[in-house]
Amino acid sequence: MNFINLIDYAGTFAFAISGIRLASAKRFDWFGAYVVGLVTAIGGGTTRDLLLNVTPFWMLQPSYLIVTGVALISAILFGKVLIKFNNTFFIFDAIGLGLFVVVGIERTLRAGFPFWVAIVMGMITGSVGGIIRDILINELPLIFRKDIYALACVIGGLVFFGCSALHFSPIITQIASAGSVILTRVLAVRFHISLPVLKGYENN
Amino acid sequence: MNFINLIDYAGTFAFAISGIRLASAKRFDWFGAYVVGLVTAIGGGTTRDLLLNVTPFWMLQPSYLIVTGVALISAILFGKVLIKFNNTFFIFDAIGLGLFVVVGIERTLRAGFPFWVAIVMGMITGSVGGIIRDILINELPLIFRKDIYALACVIGGLVFFGCSALHFSPIITQIASAGSVILTRVLAVRFHISLPVLKGYENN
Amino acid sequence: MNFINLIDYAGTFAFAISGIRLASAKRFDWFGAYVVGLVTAIGGGTTRDLLLNVTPFWMLQPSYLIVTGVALISAILFGKVLIKFNNTFFIFDAIGLGLFVVVGIERTLRAGFPFWVAIVMGMITGSVGGIIRDILINELPLIFRKDIYALACVIGGLVFFGCSALHFSPIITQIASAGSVILTRVLAVRFHISLPVLKGYENN
Repeated sequence: MNFINLIDYAGTFAFAISGIRLASAKRFDWFGAYVVGLVTAIGGGTTRDLLLNVTPFWMLQPSYLIVTGVALISAILFGKVLIKFNNTFFIFDAIGLGLFVVVGIERTLRAGFPFWVAIVMGMITGSVGGIIRDILINELPLIFRKDIYALACVIGGLVFFGCSALHFSPIITQIASAGSVILTRVLAVRFHISLPVLKGYENN
Repeated sequence: MNFINLIDYAGTFAFAISGIRLASAKRFDWFGAYVVGLVTAIGGGTTRDLLLNVTPFWMLQPSYLIVTGVALISAILFGKVLIKFNNTFFIFDAIGLGLFVVVGIERTLRAGFPFWVAIVMGMITGSVGGIIRDILINELPLIFRKDIYALACVIGGLVFFGCSALHFSPIITQIASAGSVILTRVLAVRFHISLPVLKGYENN
Repeated sequence: MNFINLIDYAGTFAFAISGIRLASAKRFDWFGAYVVGLVTAIGGGTTRDLLLNVTPFWMLQPSYLIVTGVALISAILFGKVLIKFNNTFFIFDAIGLGLFVVVGIERTLRAGFPFWVAIVMGMITGSVGGIIRDILINELPLIFRKDIYALACVIGGLVFFGCSALHFSPIITQIASAGSVILTRVLAVRFHISLPVLKGYENN
């Protein structure tokens, strides 16, 4: 297991925990919480792979189901403790998001699509899991209303594009792209930066 | 850009505006409104293309993302004015719906499926975008409850089938099919025609 | 039409009726109720087939659309009577679930995937239709909160796996797997057996 795998699993764990917690708050049972956690973790990549017409990544190795299982067991055993580590999870989640965006972009370019499709796929990989989670727990999708999230994925995509255009090495390009996603998320949450809301439609 | 393209973009614009407006009413931020607008415009065709196992149409050219961007900018700049043009949008929306149904039917027949699949795909192309929009903004899908909408797509499909069976020319078939969708919508909204609701299940 | 077909249609009918009833309780019109019924019946298998990259099963023969149509007409004509047969439907639904799980597992193995993917696909085939139904009617998915449902599909998958490992004949394996799903459902509903809910997340 190399460094990328480690980040991938940490990101999957953080995404799964967010799904398990929100599902449990709605009184979903253990299995329901597991399913919501899993969908949060793999929903974005699965949507991307369906659109790219390749086999969904989690069907090729059972590690994502196992990591989500570990997340559920952790939540059952250490529930109260986990809540105290909220900030730690935020960092995991941000790092996972950065990695998911880079993975989404690279898979799309490898499938032969142009850059603008890759940027959209990076955003889908990073944010669709959280959107499906919020639909399953019957809430308005959080990422559309608070703290720059989906836009952070697009910024990461543009940085990837810029680094590629400047012929930076792949590893520098990946780090710069993922880093810009993480930085955007940290700054947005820390300083409560949000995009404006369209006015004038309240009474429609 | 020929006439069909023009109608396609007008329909995309009208569908995107409906998503942007409803998302903004729920206090989604600009980017959230953009995403909901985009999904409203391309969600039906994307679902159809996934079912037909062909590359989703919007991944082949960036125009749908651009038209949705123009719709967002219009909504930001001319919000109050746009509301006044509600009726204009209804016509765009109805024309777009007619075109989407015809495009969905033709793509399905070209992929080698029988007519009854094409009629279902015409309906999916026309109505799934609006269904996903309503799910994202956490409302009961409008099209299942008011003014004949999904059924208008089916009527358009049956007219397409009838014209084909009578060996009408493709262009006549297309115009008759799209026209019957538009006419059904206009009559349903104008005279408040709705399908009945099943009785007796209220207390289940 | 052989025995398997008959069970398949009975299961489709029971799934469709559950969608039609819940949609009607939300005042969806006839066509909306039909669409929700259809999605309840075919949503799981369609998701499975998209993930397996095979043509969705209902696009190969119109019988699923027809059975759902018969379900709608039955609900319109015999609404009050149908409600009295609630327990009958529960048995149809449980039998349909058992069959859907077995069909999902076999299609997945035939597509060349390993057993753990097949078990997941069995669960997806059996439960995603009900999840989409609950999303469309804007309710928290029932199967995550009450009476062991998705887990019953997993149990059926494990029984299938066990019987295969012991080299039982295909027909015995199928019956044992479907039977374990049905038995789990009947016992769970009869004795109100539910999985526990994760504690300590209520105030998040």
